[in-house]
Amino acid sequence: MSTVADSPDTTVADAQAIAEQSAAAMWAEDAASRGLGMQLDEVRPGCAQVSMQVREDMVNGHAICHGGFVFALTDSAFAFACNSYNRSTVAQACDIVFVAPARLGDQLVAQAVERTRFGRNGIYDVTVRRDSEVIAEFRGRSREITGLLVPEDAESPS
Amino acid sequence: MSTVADSPDTTVADAQAIAEQSAAAMWAEDAASRGLGMQLDEVRPGCAQVSMQVREDMVNGHAICHGGFVFALTDSAFAFACNSYNRSTVAQACDIVFVAPARLGDQLVAQAVERTRFGRNGIYDVTVRRDSEVIAEFRGRSREITGLLVPEDAESPS
Amino acid sequence: MSTVADSPDTTVADAQAIAEQSAAAMWAEDAASRGLGMQLDEVRPGCAQVSMQVREDMVNGHAICHGGFVFALTDSAFAFACNSYNRSTVAQACDIVFVAPARLGDQLVAQAVERTRFGRNGIYDVTVRRDSEVIAEFRGRSREITGLLVPEDAESPS
Amino acid sequence: MSTVADSPDTTVADAQAIAEQSAAAMWAEDAASRGLGMQLDEVRPGCAQVSMQVREDMVNGHAICHGGFVFALTDSAFAFACNSYNRSTVAQACDIVFVAPARLGDQLVAQAVERTRFGRNGIYDVTVRRDSEVIAEFRGRSREITGLLVPEDAESPS
Repeated sequence: MSTVADSPDTTVADAQAIAEQSAAAMWAEDAASRGLGMQLDEVRPGCAQVSMQVREDMVNGHAICHGGFVFALTDSAFAFACNSYNRSTVAQACDIVFVAPARLGDQLVAQAVERTRFGRNGIYDVTVRRDSEVIAEFRGRSREITGLLVPEDAESPS
Repeated sequence: MSTVADSPDTTVADAQAIAEQSAAAMWAEDAASRGLGMQLDEVRPGCAQVSMQVREDMVNGHAICHGGFVFALTDSAFAFACNSYNRSTVAQACDIVFVAPARLGDQLVAQAVERTRFGRNGIYDVTVRRDSEVIAEFRGRSREITGLLVPEDAESPS
Repeated sequence: MSTVADSPDTTVADAQAIAEQSAAAMWAEDAASRGLGMQLDEVRPGCAQVSMQVREDMVNGHAICHGGFVFALTDSAFAFACNSYNRSTVAQACDIVFVAPARLGDQLVAQAVERTRFGRNGIYDVTVRRDSEVIAEFRGRSREITGLLVPEDAESPS
Repeated sequence: MSTVADSPDTTVADAQAIAEQSAAAMWAEDAASRGLGMQLDEVRPGCAQVSMQVREDMVNGHAICHGGFVFALTDSAFAFACNSYNRSTVAQACDIVFVAPARLGDQLVAQAVERTRFGRNGIYDVTVRRDSEVIAEFRGRSREITGLLVPEDAESPS
């Protein structure tokens, strides 16, 4: 199951190209994230940044965002980060701590960073912020399954 | 901060009335859960059942439900269960294990059960099923804050 | 990888015999749990009860038990429960909530109960009590690896 | 409950002195960590490093360290980090992922780093390594309770 990413000849530029192609393939399929108004700001090998504005349909009568939408944002950032090596990877388990409430109109930014990978498993930390204030801290555990996001030929930089 | 629920004279019927009034007050405010098509099937002291059908706007191109919507369902069931004593209670932290994928059209049922309460804290377990198959296992930690969901006069059974 | 436990002919008595033989094989190897003074009170398919008294070497200067020893007790109960099918199974990840402090001399009882199994994965809940008071709530995720705890011939009831 | 640490005049050197005095007070009380052979290598505001060698009484018959002792190491590092501001702080909840087995004789090093603090709550990440290899990833949630570790007079740098 070796991919270009494992090869000793893979350059930093190649790894970045693979991350971007993997993200583009995922994004094209991910109607749910798009439907929530998310934007994929950046992807790098093992990392991703996704942002989302809190809409009317995400809040309760006190203008506080439902935790499910904050989680959805973290989960999407996690998914882009752990799929950045062009290997199909799924979320096994996640935990989230709600640090401060998000409110109607808030622009939320989720940054996902890889903590460690071992075998087919990975651990990713995601922080959600509104400007510099932390809204939530998330940790996700991923597992590679069989399959690629883009065909290897397509991913190979020429 | 004693409420009717703490009184030695509170009957089982009173506790159930309080749970239902608390849930009605929350539900009226919870445009987000309603907007996701959730239904509050049942509430009892410390317990709640919420259901939701997986819609087109919740899935990716392979008809798999985004984890954020499964989490939103568990989070809502958790919220109704931990707020069933007419004390304003918020989610501190949650973890979820994704057991099997949910798909377009699936009718998901989340059952939240109180595990323990101590001081202002509580632990609630939520299982999401499609028919008898487990889709996700969630554990939430709650914390009471100041405030009631319904005025005490309103809650008092006459 | 079918074992006696999967066979349609396995009786309840057989499953119990397998659980007891698996536990005996683990216990014989588990010098660490024995060294902490743990006792394996009971094992059933998917369940186990382990108890431990809080000793002088487990407490700080205020006679409060170090969280590591409470965790060790939950982790052992979890291990006996998830290995009760005679398939070598390891802990992937665990979380613990500390509900109340344990003190010098306390007799702690940990009960592990299987919540769900899927593929090679399992989820087990462990509650630690001192008499009827909850001390900690633990959830562990297990994964089967290759291997048996006892040879299949030995496990087969004759 | 303001302490020197909150004052705008607190210098970096003062904060370090407070961290060291807090750690010294804790260590003097912490017979359990000392009994497990732990060493407190370093403490800084919000951070701590603790190390421990895997002993004969920590392993099973296959020379694999019981997860409880790996957890105890992470829990101690977490405790020193979250108590580095001279405010009595306890563990609320923790989760740990076991990345690779630790073995008899291994020298394990746990590094605890503060991720965020909000109100009386904190989140701390602890990584356990054997040389450069990750053995476990831990996240702990702390909560301040009433009390100081050292009297304020003692902590004030003169």
